[in-house]
Amino acid sequence: MLAPYNDEYFMKKALEEAKTAYEKGEIPVGVVVVINDRIIARGHNLTETLNDVTAHAEMQAITAAADFLGGKYLQNCTMYITLEPCQMCAGALYWSQISKIVFGAKDPQRGYRKFGVQLHPKTEVESGILEKECGALLKRFFIEKRNLN
Amino acid sequence: MLAPYNDEYFMKKALEEAKTAYEKGEIPVGVVVVINDRIIARGHNLTETLNDVTAHAEMQAITAAADFLGGKYLQNCTMYITLEPCQMCAGALYWSQISKIVFGAKDPQRGYRKFGVQLHPKTEVESGILEKECGALLKRFFIEKRNLN
Repeated sequence: MLAPYNDEYFMKKALEEAKTAYEKGEIPVGVVVVINDRIIARGHNLTETLNDVTAHAEMQAITAAADFLGGKYLQNCTMYITLEPCQMCAGALYWSQISKIVFGAKDPQRGYRKFGVQLHPKTEVESGILEKECGALLKRFFIEKRNLN
Repeated sequence: MLAPYNDEYFMKKALEEAKTAYEKGEIPVGVVVVINDRIIARGHNLTETLNDVTAHAEMQAITAAADFLGGKYLQNCTMYITLEPCQMCAGALYWSQISKIVFGAKDPQRGYRKFGVQLHPKTEVESGILEKECGALLKRFFIEKRNLN
């Protein structure tokens, strides 16, 4: 029997969040936070809807996961993110001491790795899960946006 | 006649916010956002109260200022901060395109400059305003905390 809960399974859930953002006209980035194979928080980018540059998917999901856990540290949690986090979100993940992050598409221009932003020493990083699908949704969004202007 | 509105004036207002945080048992960091000599947003660290690592003074004030302005970019705004911003807050300030930040105390261990985090090219930076006073409040907090444990 195949294990139903693996990295692809949860990244698909994050991708569903990204699609919700896309439908709202937001840059399509989505996130789920998982503990013991259970999703405890979800988030999608809402910067346009909320008129707030801090409303990235990751930021909302960090707050929601901490609320669920009743504590501010996300130990034993894994965050699945469709896009490599930016400086702000990586900085927030640092403070959260999250155990693991898994991201889909890379962001060579705005991603945290370009700038030397540090995650917490306790945080494991994996990337490339459903990279094509995560990247394709972002590409589609930006092509459509360009054609509208 | 002395101009009442200068960097020291607004940093004192940020310091009042930091003192409010101190009284709540929070690491004492405070912020005000100013446009045309008018304070449009205030914030103080609430990470313990809200159980949320993203609840730094700067993050709350960015959201509040954007709400006041009705737009997410903080153009023509200056943020006065009692402590050098961390990676997360500097990353948020990057997205906000804020015109200027002024901070009091330096943070050689956790400050954004240590990690190479980038602010927006439009953002001017000034530091050292009321540095002693801002730093003294932080020192007092940490000494008292150590003596309690």
